[in-house]
Amino acid sequence: MTRYTTVMVAHTVLLDFTVPSGQIMDVDKRANLKANITNVLKEHFIGLKHLTESMVDGSLIILFTGPRGSIITVRGYAEGLVTINIEYYKQDDEEALLSFESARDLETALQAATSATRSHSLTPIKRGGPFERYFPTADERLLEYDIDKLVFEARSPYQKVQIVHSKSLGNMLILDELQNMSEADLIYTETLMQRGKENYEGKEIVILGGGDGGLLWELLKENPKHVTMLEIDDIVMKACSQYMRSVCGDCLDKRKTAKYEIIVGDCVKALSHMIEEGRQFDYVFGDLTDIPISTTPHGDAWDFIRLILNSSMKVLKPTGKYMTHGNGASCPESLKMYEEVLSQLSVPVKFTKDSAFIPSFFEDWIFYQVSLK
Amino acid sequence: MTRYTTVMVAHTVLLDFTVPSGQIMDVDKRANLKANITNVLKEHFIGLKHLTESMVDGSLIILFTGPRGSIITVRGYAEGLVTINIEYYKQDDEEALLSFESARDLETALQAATSATRSHSLTPIKRGGPFERYFPTADERLLEYDIDKLVFEARSPYQKVQIVHSKSLGNMLILDELQNMSEADLIYTETLMQRGKENYEGKEIVILGGGDGGLLWELLKENPKHVTMLEIDDIVMKACSQYMRSVCGDCLDKRKTAKYEIIVGDCVKALSHMIEEGRQFDYVFGDLTDIPISTTPHGDAWDFIRLILNSSMKVLKPTGKYMTHGNGASCPESLKMYEEVLSQLSVPVKFTKDSAFIPSFFEDWIFYQVSLK
Repeated sequence: MTRYTTVMVAHTVLLDFTVPSGQIMDVDKRANLKANITNVLKEHFIGLKHLTESMVDGSLIILFTGPRGSIITVRGYAEGLVTINIEYYKQDDEEALLSFESARDLETALQAATSATRSHSLTPIKRGGPFERYFPTADERLLEYDIDKLVFEARSPYQKVQIVHSKSLGNMLILDELQNMSEADLIYTETLMQRGKENYEGKEIVILGGGDGGLLWELLKENPKHVTMLEIDDIVMKACSQYMRSVCGDCLDKRKTAKYEIIVGDCVKALSHMIEEGRQFDYVFGDLTDIPISTTPHGDAWDFIRLILNSSMKVLKPTGKYMTHGNGASCPESLKMYEEVLSQLSVPVKFTKDSAFIPSFFEDWIFYQVSLK
Repeated sequence: MTRYTTVMVAHTVLLDFTVPSGQIMDVDKRANLKANITNVLKEHFIGLKHLTESMVDGSLIILFTGPRGSIITVRGYAEGLVTINIEYYKQDDEEALLSFESARDLETALQAATSATRSHSLTPIKRGGPFERYFPTADERLLEYDIDKLVFEARSPYQKVQIVHSKSLGNMLILDELQNMSEADLIYTETLMQRGKENYEGKEIVILGGGDGGLLWELLKENPKHVTMLEIDDIVMKACSQYMRSVCGDCLDKRKTAKYEIIVGDCVKALSHMIEEGRQFDYVFGDLTDIPISTTPHGDAWDFIRLILNSSMKVLKPTGKYMTHGNGASCPESLKMYEEVLSQLSVPVKFTKDSAFIPSFFEDWIFYQVSLK
């Protein structure tokens, strides 16, 4: 095991201990528990000082100060849980006050001192610094990525756009602090477009969103007649064109060629316009972010999804297909909800599904292929 | 996004805000910052009360109490970082006081109130409860797994043995709170044994460790002459035999058949004995845990690795191979160190490498194939 270097950040080390609830509730036992914890902390932290102590809603809280400006918060819950949080500011190149290994040693000592039936310690959580390294999965679990560099950052009129570098995944597009697409995610685009199963040669295609350029780039390799891409955020395209070139090639460099056109604007409006004109396509791709970005007013995210689906069906040829990403396999409720929306569109549709493990999502993702009944 | 249900645990919500350091250092600005933060917290937490406040090594610390016994710790570091930790005990089936979504709303409000140039919020960290859900990667990053059940737990003479259930990975073997092997990891065993590249038919094989039974089970499918497995921890084998049956089949049910023998004991001693007897094998597998478990005294982990390697070379036929797992691709220093150890064995060796993405490790893992020069 090796530690990876980090820039200046605060470290928060979280330990927890399951103890008999009597140890917190009973006055004498609580005094004993406090003394035992304090003794262990004193052994591990030179110059430990008691700062303050309270009882809050039947739970005990003690604050200590330790070396290097560390604050150690001990909380004893009446339910039988002791949490210990150690937080300090770690300068660049400075040795950690508490590494994961030494936190585990401290955990072992405290486990014995508290007679805990269970104990856990987490690798130090890094706070602040120039880039985010924690992103949630679809089911809101915490993942720490091996980010080592902020490559690009700008606030567009629509969202915060960042490109960060991951040691294992290459550059990653982050929108409003949520993970979007990495250079290791070709499988995402290939599953979205059902490469090898769908024939795009000579076909007319619309992409809703798709600002990273990955889908456009891969579709162009299949010799379609024409692709129209409707993306609202110019900043995303400029960032990807420069820093995600292994994903989008040079397709975002130009906005119009004989083979494709990128229209910078709200896809809801552009779709309305296409419906008015009676245009029809072989494929419409829903490649928008999960959290809707549009100048068109809409209620919750599901209303927006419904609006996009109903509009898309109106510009599909009778033999056409609407291709989109669903959600993580870890979110069966969301997937079910999406399928309910599909069953209640203004025109009857049928759908097939496919899934793939997306490297930068660290989970299986579900993709839908919708066609008119 | 959907929340996955959890049992009774404390929730710790971590927010952080990068601010100009003057906001902490300057007395007037600090008073202003405090007032702004307090106002936002009051809006979000009904009944917020100021508990205590201190300056520690130039950093500000304020404690508030909030609803449902929550403690809110605000820390302002002179370096220009404000961390806010919100911790409370969440009963089973109780709505979270702060979901990831509402934590992000709070973050947005506090970001404006503190004029922060950067802010982050993490999905709530769950503390306590009957099972661990956070495990580190090889490079000590934090991963939250989708664990929903403790399946087995026992303390053997050597280690804490747990089997937990992951929604996406199936059952997982956890040794001393470290992730070991899941039911989704057949690729681990196949890469370790180089399935399709090595021919095991009629061969004599030793496995050092291998308590999960996965390697033995897969090797037996290739019709070897005989496999001897040397595993110290009977509890691991019994647990896997019962709860990881998709990994080990029925091979751990018996300790001796015509095709294999499982010797419960220290592999270092067994290897010495084999050397004394002059036994020779076609393959020796190093399938031990990363943190050595042995009754034989040894210095650090590298001394143990060296001892195992030197002993193994002595029981290899001249054409034999030593097959083992290395480390995560995220740990190039450890891999380099391992290769240095290989280059300094008591007999000269050469090696090849292979790698595979291991689902339950969430990273690429490196495997070595070592042979005598």
